[in-house]
Formats: sequence, structure tokens, C-alpha cells
Amino acid sequence: MNAIMTLSTQPYKGTRDFYPADKRMQKYMFSIMRRVAESYGYEEYDAPLLEPVDLYLAKTGDEIVNEQTYVFDDRGGRKIVIRPEMTPTVSRMIAGQRQELAYPVRWYSIPNLWRYERPQRGRLREHWQLNVDIFGVDNHFAEAEVIQVANSILQLAGATHDMYTIKLNSRKLINFIMKDYLRLDSVQSTTIAKLVDRMHKMPPEVFTAEVDAVFTPTQRESGASNKLLGLLKIKSLEHLPAMIRQHSSALELKELIHVLKKAKITNAVFDLSVMRGFDYYTGIVFEIFDEQPDNNRSMLGGGRYDGLVGLFGVEPIPTVGFGFGDVTFQNFIEGHDLMPQLRSETDLYVVLIGNAYEGAQPIIDRIREMGVNIAVDLSGRSAEKQIKNAVKKNIHYALFIGERDLKEEQFEIKNLLTGVAERHSLERIVSIVKDYRSND
Amino acid sequence: MNAIMTLSTQPYKGTRDFYPADKRMQKYMFSIMRRVAESYGYEEYDAPLLEPVDLYLAKTGDEIVNEQTYVFDDRGGRKIVIRPEMTPTVSRMIAGQRQELAYPVRWYSIPNLWRYERPQRGRLREHWQLNVDIFGVDNHFAEAEVIQVANSILQLAGATHDMYTIKLNSRKLINFIMKDYLRLDSVQSTTIAKLVDRMHKMPPEVFTAEVDAVFTPTQRESGASNKLLGLLKIKSLEHLPAMIRQHSSALELKELIHVLKKAKITNAVFDLSVMRGFDYYTGIVFEIFDEQPDNNRSMLGGGRYDGLVGLFGVEPIPTVGFGFGDVTFQNFIEGHDLMPQLRSETDLYVVLIGNAYEGAQPIIDRIREMGVNIAVDLSGRSAEKQIKNAVKKNIHYALFIGERDLKEEQFEIKNLLTGVAERHSLERIVSIVKDYRSND
Repeated sequence: MNAIMTLSTQPYKGTRDFYPADKRMQKYMFSIMRRVAESYGYEEYDAPLLEPVDLYLAKTGDEIVNEQTYVFDDRGGRKIVIRPEMTPTVSRMIAGQRQELAYPVRWYSIPNLWRYERPQRGRLREHWQLNVDIFGVDNHFAEAEVIQVANSILQLAGATHDMYTIKLNSRKLINFIMKDYLRLDSVQSTTIAKLVDRMHKMPPEVFTAEVDAVFTPTQRESGASNKLLGLLKIKSLEHLPAMIRQHSSALELKELIHVLKKAKITNAVFDLSVMRGFDYYTGIVFEIFDEQPDNNRSMLGGGRYDGLVGLFGVEPIPTVGFGFGDVTFQNFIEGHDLMPQLRSETDLYVVLIGNAYEGAQPIIDRIREMGVNIAVDLSGRSAEKQIKNAVKKNIHYALFIGERDLKEEQFEIKNLLTGVAERHSLERIVSIVKDYRSND
Repeated sequence: MNAIMTLSTQPYKGTRDFYPADKRMQKYMFSIMRRVAESYGYEEYDAPLLEPVDLYLAKTGDEIVNEQTYVFDDRGGRKIVIRPEMTPTVSRMIAGQRQELAYPVRWYSIPNLWRYERPQRGRLREHWQLNVDIFGVDNHFAEAEVIQVANSILQLAGATHDMYTIKLNSRKLINFIMKDYLRLDSVQSTTIAKLVDRMHKMPPEVFTAEVDAVFTPTQRESGASNKLLGLLKIKSLEHLPAMIRQHSSALELKELIHVLKKAKITNAVFDLSVMRGFDYYTGIVFEIFDEQPDNNRSMLGGGRYDGLVGLFGVEPIPTVGFGFGDVTFQNFIEGHDLMPQLRSETDLYVVLIGNAYEGAQPIIDRIREMGVNIAVDLSGRSAEKQIKNAVKKNIHYALFIGERDLKEEQFEIKNLLTGVAERHSLERIVSIVKDYRSND
């Protein structure tokens, strides 16, 4: 037994235990996500946590699979991955029923995801992520809708538009600028994209120097490098040079911002620095930035990825989606002080006086059948200690049941917050408790 | 791209994709589990999917960890396991807050679990399992309560008592019979227990022969082997030999059956053949058997395991709990034809006529704000095709919005089941849809 005595009570590195108070918080966030997604007609789906490694190699490339995922061989020699993201999986599922589905398909999920990395603020090894995707719409109404979904989630959590900014960009616009406006080749373009993706994580002068180094001396002399640095500072489509402003992808962004304004979303802006890490995006991309000074970071990202379903040998399907992690959502809620008081799901705590268990049981069952969540203190300790238990469990009402009460069919109910105790019939007690719950 | 074209759309072996209809079924089952557990005062918790291997070695022994789990080394050289069950994890968490918790602690969870085995009916590699545990109660009221929880779940799913049997036994009684009544040593006892655990999976004559072989010739001559076979047939405590019937553990079982009867649970019986596979049980054990002839098997099991929390170097805590898998629950529901018609969460499907998107948007947003789940067909196809989409998605009502309707502020709503179409104001439409939903 000695070796066993050293068993740790800590969870695995980079993960969290969810004690009931933590789980309550998570359920609160998930219920907001579900309510909003379903109000827009999205249906929930799910899929296995393990996937064959091929699913990721096809689109993300080696780096992420090899360095940032949990990958191992199963006993049958198959190389499998604990899913790091849901997009390849949902593409697989859509491809599997390509012909049977009615488009547009609106799906959401809140999968458990794993990534192998050093735990840090906002990033843990285990997290959950709302995935919202719409399949089969090839115009910007799809982008507008999923951004509305994201916006509605933040609003339902109590946020106002000053707390966050919706930053829009377009892969097509980026490609046009890189290739036609700055005359960069594809290697230079990719390097720049990766640099820009990390630009807020390095000092401006380091960023400028690293950007400069990507350009050839001739390109630098022609001012291309300075042009790019200038473009990155522009926060409005109107201020772009005419050649860029009139490109079809810029006009599409302008139209999207217009549609969002009509839907009362006034905090959506163009931002050329939004690149999105994954290389499967094909059109508009977006990120939502938390404006809380201590947590000024991207908390949600998505965009159009029309090509992914096609990787499964079926005809491609236009797709727009986003992912929103539980850790960043929680940081946002806490950072803006939006966390409500979440009370126990248990409405009533029964304190048994003396030897009342057997007589009390039918009463307790009746109260439960009337729709009240009711717990019984089975400890056999003093009434005082039982009440302390109820208080510790954050339960609002205690109900005292002793043998005399059972005879009289009248019971004492105590509001543990105010300390007020009253004696009532069973029916009256149930209605008091239900009233409190529905007003909560 | 050629290699990529072969990417499979199938999920990993022994697992399931949950398309929206499947997920709806799972959510239906989980909501029954949650509702019942919370009605008894149980609070939901959760924990990471990965755990260090030591957690399982301490209690289950090598066999399960090595042969039936997903175990691998992480990049830091830690040996980790994708959890095959929740009991070690919940014991770890309780031990971690041993001093802070208010007892009795009532917790439940519906974790995702993995086991590495050949997929078969009722057993898959990935499944979910409701875990219900009560900590801190050292008498049979704890067993009675968790059995009530299990019973209420089946009842809420529409089951009646003839559809299942609650079989009760006791580890203490088993030990008494093995050691004091049959005079078996501990190796013999373990072998017998394992045999009995599998007795319904082999022909009776094979079972008899294998049991016989465990006994020594002297024991056989004294009739011990026949005594055991006789005991296994007894289905009532009253029919046990007096020496066994009067043992404290038999009296406790009798008392438990009495308490369950008082709670209107009349299908609980004593059955000495209930052994439970895991070796951490210390008192009463129970299983619920599905009485459907094609699926006559144990679908839920649990019992008292007072020692597990103590493995973490803190004082042990009396504990009773059970696990109920989603696959067995679903087999039960389907086997007894208890599956309700689950409708789409989307109340209303908007069919856009002509170029009405921008004008329709504020109307759609208003309907949504009034609490209706509403999806818009953004396909731009003919009205007829859009309606077909709604029908395919199992949505009950379609709402037609064209430019004329926007001017008149009157809209056509069509019941897609009856085909009846009516023209109404927005408010009237919302109330029609809400009425239908609340009567569903």
C-alpha cells in the first residue's frame, strides 16, 4: 500500500478538474452557445474523439500533427490522433453524406479538443470549442450569419459592442495584395502571412526588420516593404489605395460590413493583419478581439473554407465557420465582470430530525414528483450541522422533517439566506420553492 | 491531390459519428439522466479525459490497463491513459478536497470513456456513461437512493417494472459464503467469483464442470460444490439456509429491499450470481437486467466501494455509486419501443421569395428575439426546392417572405405536416409556432 499512498490528487498537466462550481460555469457558457446556435437553426452533431492521422495530414501539414497533437499507434498498428480541432472531422462527416443532406446545412458542436503544448493563459492542453458551420452558401450572407451567431453569443453573455471588435479580412484580398500589388512570390507571401499572424506578439521594430528581410533589395528599393507596413495600419476599406479598394474581394468585404450594420453590428472593421493560422481558408476570414486591456487578444476566429469537403473525393461545398473556445470565452466573461451568480440546481435540502427517514421518504418523493430538486441529509448528525451542510452547498431552502411534522402534515421551511422560517403544508412549500426558482 | 482523394469518410473503428438525428437521441437520453440526477440533489462534475496510468494500476490491476485501455507515452515521457472509467477519477477529486466538502456529497457526470476491445453489441470503443455517486453515508439508505435514481431514469424514459429487474447481492455475504459456509480459500474464492461473473455466457453444464474443478476432492465429497450451485439458483433471501440468512449482510439486503418497496420499487430481488467485475466493491452490489428477450443482459451496475478514496492517502470515505452507459440505455429504449419522435429544434424555416434577403433580415431577427428558433434558406433556389429542404430537415413550419409581404407586414405560414397555409401578422405567427412547441 505504500506506493499507492503517493497517488496524486492533481489532474494531468495543462488540464482542469471541473468541481461542481466549475462545471456549473462551463454549463452556463455552453447553454448560451447552444441557445444562440439553435435560435439560428443550427443542429448539434458530434463525432469520436479519436481520428486517423491521415485526416490531419491532408490539410494542415506535418508541423501541427507532429508537434502539437497527441498522436500514437493503437494496438492494431493504426496511427491515431486525439482530435486537436473539429474542422477536418465535420468535413469528413459532410462528405460522407454529401448527397443526402439538404443545403444549406447548419451544424454546431462543442467538442473536447487536445493539443500538446506548454500551458499558458487562454491555452490549455484540454479545452472545448464551439464549432459553428454553414455548408452550401457561396455568398457573404453565410459570413454575415455566422458572425451574427458569434455576436449574439457575446450579447447573451451580457457583452456590449465596446468590449470587443470584429476584425475582417479576406484571403482573396491578401493574395491579390501579395501577388499583384506587392509582386511577391508564393514563398515570400507565406512567410509574410506567418509573420503578420504573430505581429502582435513581438516588438514593432522586430516585426519591421523581419518583414524587411523577406523582400529582395530591388523590391525594398521600389518601396514594396514600406507599402505593406503602411497597409497593415489601415483600419478602413476607404483608406486603401484605389487599386486594392476596387478589387472584388474588397467590395465583398464592404458589402459584408453593410449587412452587419443592418443587423445592428457596428463594431466590425477591416483589418489586413487578420491572417488566421490554418491554410485552408479561401475567402473572408474574421477574428473577434477582446478589448479588455489585460486580455487584448483574439478570442474567436473563422472564415470561408470552400475546399475542405472536396478532399474526400466528393464535389467541394462552399463552407463558412468559426471556432470559439471555452477558455477564451471564460476569460472574456470574467475580464468584463459578466459572470452571474450561479446557484445550486438543488432547490431544497431536507434536514431529518430524529428517526424520521422512513416516514419522510414518501413526502420527499412527492415533492420531487412535483418537479422540485430535493436532497436529503443522510448523515444522521445534529440539525445544526445538517443546516451548515446546506449552506455550504449553496442551497437556498432547508426543509425540516421530524416525526411530529409527519403527523401534522405541516413542515418548517427555512430561507437560508434571510434566516426566515415558516411552517406550511407540502403544497405551499413546493410553490414557495418554485416561485423562487422561476424568479431567479 | 491523388493520395488525398482516398481519405475515408468513415469514423474510427468501434466508434460512432453523431449526425444531428443521432445527437438528438443522445441528448434526449442525457437530459433524462441529468433531470433525474438533479432531482435527487446530485451536482454535475467533470474531469480531464487523460489521466496518469498510476491511477488505474492502483486499483484494477495490470490486465485491464494493459489489454483493455488506450495507454501511451506523452512527449514528456509520462505514461497516460484515455480514461476507461470514471470511478478512479472521481475518487481522486474527492480525495483532493476531502476536507472542504460537505457530506453527503452527491455527484454525477456523463464522461466520454474509451476501452480497447473488439466492438460488439452493447459495447463500443467509445461510449458515454452516467456516473452517480454518493459519498459519506455508511448505511443502506445510500444504496436505496442511488437505486432509486437508476429506477427513476428508466421510469422517465417510459419503462415499467416488468421491463427490467434490479438484482442485489453483497460482497460481504459472498465472502461469508465462500470462507465460512463453503470453507474455500481466497484463491478458490476469486476463481469462483470470476466464473460466476461469466456464468450466463456459457452453457450450464460447462459452468457446473468448471465450478466443480475449483473444489478439492474432499470439498466435493462434503457436498460444497453442490451447495454452491444450489445457492446460485435461489432468488429470495427467505430461501437461503438459516446460517446465511441470519448473517448481518443478508439482514442488510433484506432491509434494503424493504426500503425500496416503500419507494414503490417492487422489482428488486436478491441474486447471488451478481459479482461485479471490478475488485473495489466492499458491500452491497447491484445490477439492472434488461428483461427484453433479445437483449437479456445487465445494463447498469454499481455498489458500495468504501476504500477507493483512501488510496490517495486520506481517510477513506464510505461511497456508493453506479455507472449507466449510453449504448446499453439506447438498446433498452429501442428494445422496448420507448423512443419518442424527436423533432427538430428549429421551429420555423424561412423561404425567401425573390430578392428579399435584406428586407427580411430585420423581420427574422425580431422573430428570433421573441424566442423562436428560425433558419433561413439562403440557397436562392425556387420556393418549391426551399420547402423540400424544410421537409427534409423535419421542420414543422415554413414562413414565406417576399417583397410584397414585407410591405403588407403579413406573411404566409405553412404547416408542412398538414399542408395548411395561413396569412398572419408577425406576432400571430410567433404565437402559433410557440403554441405548437409547448404542446409537443
